Amino acid sequence: MIHSFKDDYSEGCHPSILAQLCASNLVQTHEGNYGHDRFSKQARILIKQHLDHPDADIHFVAGGTQANLIVISSFLKPYEAVISAHTGHIAVHETGAIEAAGHKIINQTSSNGKLEFQQVQNILQIHQDEHMVKPRMLYISNATELGTVYSKSELHELYEFCQKNQLLLFADGARLANAVMAEKNPISLADLAKFTDVFYIGGTKNGALLGEAIVINNPELQPNFRYAIKQKGGLLAKSRLLGIQFLELFRDNLFFELGENANQQASQLSRGIAEKGYPFFIATESNQIFPILPKILISKLLQDFNFHIWQSFDGQHDVIRLVTSWATPSEAIDSFLNKI
Amino acid sequence: MIHSFKDDYSEGCHPSILAQLCASNLVQTHEGNYGHDRFSKQARILIKQHLDHPDADIHFVAGGTQANLIVISSFLKPYEAVISAHTGHIAVHETGAIEAAGHKIINQTSSNGKLEFQQVQNILQIHQDEHMVKPRMLYISNATELGTVYSKSELHELYEFCQKNQLLLFADGARLANAVMAEKNPISLADLAKFTDVFYIGGTKNGALLGEAIVINNPELQPNFRYAIKQKGGLLAKSRLLGIQFLELFRDNLFFELGENANQQASQLSRGIAEKGYPFFIATESNQIFPILPKILISKLLQDFNFHIWQSFDGQHDVIRLVTSWATPSEAIDSFLNKI
Amino acid sequence: MIHSFKDDYSEGCHPSILAQLCASNLVQTHEGNYGHDRFSKQARILIKQHLDHPDADIHFVAGGTQANLIVISSFLKPYEAVISAHTGHIAVHETGAIEAAGHKIINQTSSNGKLEFQQVQNILQIHQDEHMVKPRMLYISNATELGTVYSKSELHELYEFCQKNQLLLFADGARLANAVMAEKNPISLADLAKFTDVFYIGGTKNGALLGEAIVINNPELQPNFRYAIKQKGGLLAKSRLLGIQFLELFRDNLFFELGENANQQASQLSRGIAEKGYPFFIATESNQIFPILPKILISKLLQDFNFHIWQSFDGQHDVIRLVTSWATPSEAIDSFLNKI
Amino acid sequence: MIHSFKDDYSEGCHPSILAQLCASNLVQTHEGNYGHDRFSKQARILIKQHLDHPDADIHFVAGGTQANLIVISSFLKPYEAVISAHTGHIAVHETGAIEAAGHKIINQTSSNGKLEFQQVQNILQIHQDEHMVKPRMLYISNATELGTVYSKSELHELYEFCQKNQLLLFADGARLANAVMAEKNPISLADLAKFTDVFYIGGTKNGALLGEAIVINNPELQPNFRYAIKQKGGLLAKSRLLGIQFLELFRDNLFFELGENANQQASQLSRGIAEKGYPFFIATESNQIFPILPKILISKLLQDFNFHIWQSFDGQHDVIRLVTSWATPSEAIDSFLNKI
Repeated sequence: MIHSFKDDYSEGCHPSILAQLCASNLVQTHEGNYGHDRFSKQARILIKQHLDHPDADIHFVAGGTQANLIVISSFLKPYEAVISAHTGHIAVHETGAIEAAGHKIINQTSSNGKLEFQQVQNILQIHQDEHMVKPRMLYISNATELGTVYSKSELHELYEFCQKNQLLLFADGARLANAVMAEKNPISLADLAKFTDVFYIGGTKNGALLGEAIVINNPELQPNFRYAIKQKGGLLAKSRLLGIQFLELFRDNLFFELGENANQQASQLSRGIAEKGYPFFIATESNQIFPILPKILISKLLQDFNFHIWQSFDGQHDVIRLVTSWATPSEAIDSFLNKI
Repeated sequence: MIHSFKDDYSEGCHPSILAQLCASNLVQTHEGNYGHDRFSKQARILIKQHLDHPDADIHFVAGGTQANLIVISSFLKPYEAVISAHTGHIAVHETGAIEAAGHKIINQTSSNGKLEFQQVQNILQIHQDEHMVKPRMLYISNATELGTVYSKSELHELYEFCQKNQLLLFADGARLANAVMAEKNPISLADLAKFTDVFYIGGTKNGALLGEAIVINNPELQPNFRYAIKQKGGLLAKSRLLGIQFLELFRDNLFFELGENANQQASQLSRGIAEKGYPFFIATESNQIFPILPKILISKLLQDFNFHIWQSFDGQHDVIRLVTSWATPSEAIDSFLNKI
Repeated sequence: MIHSFKDDYSEGCHPSILAQLCASNLVQTHEGNYGHDRFSKQARILIKQHLDHPDADIHFVAGGTQANLIVISSFLKPYEAVISAHTGHIAVHETGAIEAAGHKIINQTSSNGKLEFQQVQNILQIHQDEHMVKPRMLYISNATELGTVYSKSELHELYEFCQKNQLLLFADGARLANAVMAEKNPISLADLAKFTDVFYIGGTKNGALLGEAIVINNPELQPNFRYAIKQKGGLLAKSRLLGIQFLELFRDNLFFELGENANQQASQLSRGIAEKGYPFFIATESNQIFPILPKILISKLLQDFNFHIWQSFDGQHDVIRLVTSWATPSEAIDSFLNKI
Repeated sequence: MIHSFKDDYSEGCHPSILAQLCASNLVQTHEGNYGHDRFSKQARILIKQHLDHPDADIHFVAGGTQANLIVISSFLKPYEAVISAHTGHIAVHETGAIEAAGHKIINQTSSNGKLEFQQVQNILQIHQDEHMVKPRMLYISNATELGTVYSKSELHELYEFCQKNQLLLFADGARLANAVMAEKNPISLADLAKFTDVFYIGGTKNGALLGEAIVINNPELQPNFRYAIKQKGGLLAKSRLLGIQFLELFRDNLFFELGENANQQASQLSRGIAEKGYPFFIATESNQIFPILPKILISKLLQDFNFHIWQSFDGQHDVIRLVTSWATPSEAIDSFLNKI
């Protein structure tokens, strides 16, 4: 096997992060654990400098499904529902975590992984009385599960719509670094802080061993959130593990550099495949690319590379998904292109 | 601050574990993530060698509350309840995690943190029809939240009682290393495998950065457990982080050595305090000790050491809790004893 | 207002039922309440005579949403899901009751309110690992929310498919009397007992004041079901209220006569509208009819009659829903047809 | 069997209620169902006249467990808990309904079935951080499960304590008529409206076939409550059944007369037993009495009368529970006293 393009979490963490874990390993956290350690505190300060929102509340948890279920179940009343694109991670790949926490996900069919406010408007018009759930939150992923990215104006528009309609806007940022560093229409962390009620900054898929930073912008949602984290099993005793990693990601610009590298490798891979004349299921915007290849070629490539077959395209072709990461070396790109 | 005796998770991890994380960091896990990585697979094999139960199912999760809530909510039907000592972690310090997953905890008052089968029998006699919950599981902690340890014969007796009464026996092993390495009445991992339906082996409090290994002994409970882990947000993408740590804990005998060190330090601390004439709230059996000290002395000690005041004893005295760990140096013990 | 065709529950109950409530009113139920009263016991015996299944378990609850949520939440594990047509009552009109009990509903788009096994097969093929919920139950309504009826062979086919695929088949029978008495392809209660794991017989929409009889055919699902009813608030203290009503519905053939009357009135209404040249959104099979009428006519009709506007059809026309019941008098049908 | 003193729900309903059900049976509810029917509307108006609180929100549901679970699960966030006397109905006899809806019940041992604010204060002092649930609601029953009654000043004191501590006060009124009509320390419906955030008025145990009227006094708790009722399966299609019954209970003073009769019969029975020299487990305050009788006498009485053996008292004696109701005839009292 030459390389795996299956996902962006098949390596450990960026070496600088590991170095920091080693450097601080035997320091005792007298000041507290469970998120009260000095590393987590410093990491929060650093992240806030990117948010332009000093009153944001930041909490670190271990993974994306956990972040989604804690956020959504904390902020909704039992009869309130969350709206998601049908491709949304919560809608398909979390084993019913949101429903297990008591909430219906209203699915909206989407061709590009994004939600548009007109679609949401239609959903609101249908849900008018107590015989149906009450839509209360919009869940978007940025970058989306199809690698597309919300532009600043798209996000702004959605947020304004939400504000007018008493909806909360929540952005799943498992791949937020890839949206922030998108070549086209990049968006900043401060934009996220301004135009969402809550979002999270993904570490696991951007160079950390594990960890997502939940950012609560809306002050009405902030009180008692630690109760929710603890109850769902998300409050790590040795929270330093999360703090140290985010500290390193945001001490200089590692978070941004890692996202940029993943995007650039994807961009190069995408261009290379396009130059060979293969079409794409959806245009490349971040670190996931979806070329349409002949089945025979796919079989051959699978001998040397690992990747997902996304879906069938026609009798002769399938759509595949190739994911790059902070750790993807140029050699892997070259090898792949050579094999096509 | 000279040293914290507040808990057993105020340092990072044992240096050997960190070394293994560094050594394997850039290896790609082609073979799979989410628990399918090679490290987790090898760790399972090593652990099984201690269990004398080749058909046990082993799953790694990030923390103890998460382990408890996944195990309990997976194995109970909606109307089934779990019985716990009133001091049990699930009963007091998990923010209602079990109830949030839908299940009542039937509390049994206990003076030493343990459950006795006669107490359970009384509970069963009261719960006879569908107007009350149906007791279905016994939750015990070993070592308990009061540092006491179930002997092999106590565990055997409880398990036999459970078997006769269609009850599942679940042992929370957040501090299992401290029970296994207890000076008096030690118990083996194989005993746990034989006399429980399910238990977990705590890593977080015994030298890992994070991680608990859930061991399902009862084959009827094994199918589809990964669905439950995923749904509760417990399936880590980079599961190698857990696998590598347990691999190192069980490659040689690190797991046992670390437990032994914690216990020995506690034992030395306990003896030293006793020699100075102070009584104890409960006899020392593992790495948590509960001396009864004058309030004035406690105030003085708190200037140099960190620890919990467990409860008030009388007008002049409080019970304090001192916890030792794999990382507690002898100097900290000496300093503490010198200050008394 | 001349008459309401809005639903089949705008009157009280059939006068014979009320007479029985009066006759037995002051009898004390020494033998027990909460379903143990003599009336409920006798009603179960009578119903079983129609089931050809002496070992079926029968439980009476107050309403349809309650029946659905108790049945579904009792028989699924936390990570298991139920498949429903997108028009299914649980999918749209129960305010997320199933999700609030922890379970995802997998929606299948359906043009006629029914599920076909090929659609279910596709769903099974997609749901293959623990990152997605595990489909475990099929929910069908008979008659459906669009008034269509599953034939005996359709039900048989679905059940065989379920048996082969470890799926439970659950039929919501809120309007079961209308399916059983359908002019075309009628189905018997014994067919339901034979070809489902669990179903319920609707009383509320067929002449009772309230009440649905849940019938559990699959013996593996029978144990402890009363715990589930009690826990969800469905075990009525004065269960005689439900028992007496079902006793009267099944003492002679009242249940069947009331369903037949509703169907016949719908049939007459449907034929009358068709004769006037108006098309239908879906062919009439039971007591709900869906004519497509000019908006101007609809406005006029709404001055004298109550009914739902089901959906928009085109600029000039809407689909309306007219529901008949055991209590619909022929005069109401005549008046409505005269006004068209 | 001469008479059952087992409970207050072994007969049907008061004949006047049945007469009203008969009188209105064939009236169509054009104006709406699911609580929108004219009878429910009128009943709300009548009840409000007793509340001295024109802005209270009133909702009718079928039973007590249902009322409790809808109220508690609607008003608590996931990590919030309810405090109850250990004898409280929710704590013992609802099959974990509250926990199944996600919430911990904090039990407070109580000798007389009541909660005192000092006990609650202790609970608050213990529950201080996010590792424990957050107490948010007090659940009291009035009359309690031991037949005792909160006086107006006791209720006032509890409510003031709750107000100061951001706690909601919820009174389970399954036997509210018996508290309101208590000989000693009666309390009015207006007192309940003034000194609780939410309570319910029990119909099932006071002469109705079924039905409890939930009264939400606190305006912050009122919005969207119908969603919660619907989601938990509590919104009856033919809500007229509940409306008509409460209309009759409050049209004149039937509700109060029925409660008074039950109390008077209990009082007479209690005095008669006391006159024969038997002691009581707890003083009689409403319609439940708890004499301590010799086991031999109990065996003899059970040949003619139905009642619960409450608990063992000593080797020769048990505590029994005798319940009277609106329907208890004086002859039953006389017979029972004659047999002693």
